[in-house]
Amino acid sequence: MRTHGLSSDTTKLSRRPETRRSPALYGVVSFKNYAIAILPLHDNGEVTLIGQHRMPLADYSWELPEGGGPIGVDPLESAKRELREEAGLVADDWRQVLRFQLSNSVTDERGFGFIATGLAAAETEPDETEALRIVRAPFRQALDLAVAGEMPDAMTVAMLLRAYHMAKEGELPHALAKAMLS
Amino acid sequence: MRTHGLSSDTTKLSRRPETRRSPALYGVVSFKNYAIAILPLHDNGEVTLIGQHRMPLADYSWELPEGGGPIGVDPLESAKRELREEAGLVADDWRQVLRFQLSNSVTDERGFGFIATGLAAAETEPDETEALRIVRAPFRQALDLAVAGEMPDAMTVAMLLRAYHMAKEGELPHALAKAMLS
Repeated sequence: MRTHGLSSDTTKLSRRPETRRSPALYGVVSFKNYAIAILPLHDNGEVTLIGQHRMPLADYSWELPEGGGPIGVDPLESAKRELREEAGLVADDWRQVLRFQLSNSVTDERGFGFIATGLAAAETEPDETEALRIVRAPFRQALDLAVAGEMPDAMTVAMLLRAYHMAKEGELPHALAKAMLS
Repeated sequence: MRTHGLSSDTTKLSRRPETRRSPALYGVVSFKNYAIAILPLHDNGEVTLIGQHRMPLADYSWELPEGGGPIGVDPLESAKRELREEAGLVADDWRQVLRFQLSNSVTDERGFGFIATGLAAAETEPDETEALRIVRAPFRQALDLAVAGEMPDAMTVAMLLRAYHMAKEGELPHALAKAMLS
């Protein structure tokens, strides 16, 4: 879960001199963590989504399992941990399929998007202390919600569209692509 | 152009009490502006991209024309202004095709993505004071760069993938979709 973003232990607000083209100072939010989004893609074409309350936008939202990790830790390791903790899943196959700069006019937050397949229930239960809800939905339904603006988290939108692109371009196993697009 | 994000006139850093589930305080960056991304899609299947130096990430990046507008102003009006100022273009047809929450664990920044078609040169030159570079590239080439992580701005990635999705799903004119995907 991507939280604690601006507590003083994870970010700092700094001011740097801008280029000579502009004498103005420039405010930047610096992140010590990167962001992670995981698309858990089941063999039958379903995806696992997480529902959670997002304080900054004051509403309940559905999105992919997301989280973060400290810079210096392999994003894949952080992704495996987040998938287990948030969705209660482990995966046989992992592919990093997108890189992000999330709000590059004002922060240096970077993100990584993974597709996880070969899914199975983890031995441990997901951490429910953050009031997460876990659902499985057909890929098409999730994609439709994303493009309709009903699931607007930027990494979620981009990852669902990337999976569609991969299915159409032959970058996923044929049977999986067929199950997703049916 | 999305700049000035954290200068004191556009944002404030506030602390709100979190839900009863957690007694911790929660830091939120509040935006007075929303973000805009425009995909200028030419009849021949090319897209217009903007190159610019991004202070927060300390590198030069290619992305779609992007900008912002004050909350309360119609995002479409802000999009038209940004396309003219950044890309030197006007468009006959505008479609809002994505909504975003850009970094929803730590900010309340919202974004809107538009596809602009029926493009023509604006009568006024684009504003070059921000050291922008303007190029036209085949849609496929732009999409390939985005999915390869070479053009990682989140709205740019999502909008190029959305345009691919629209072309494949019959949501764009047939001739345009064919030119984009060839």
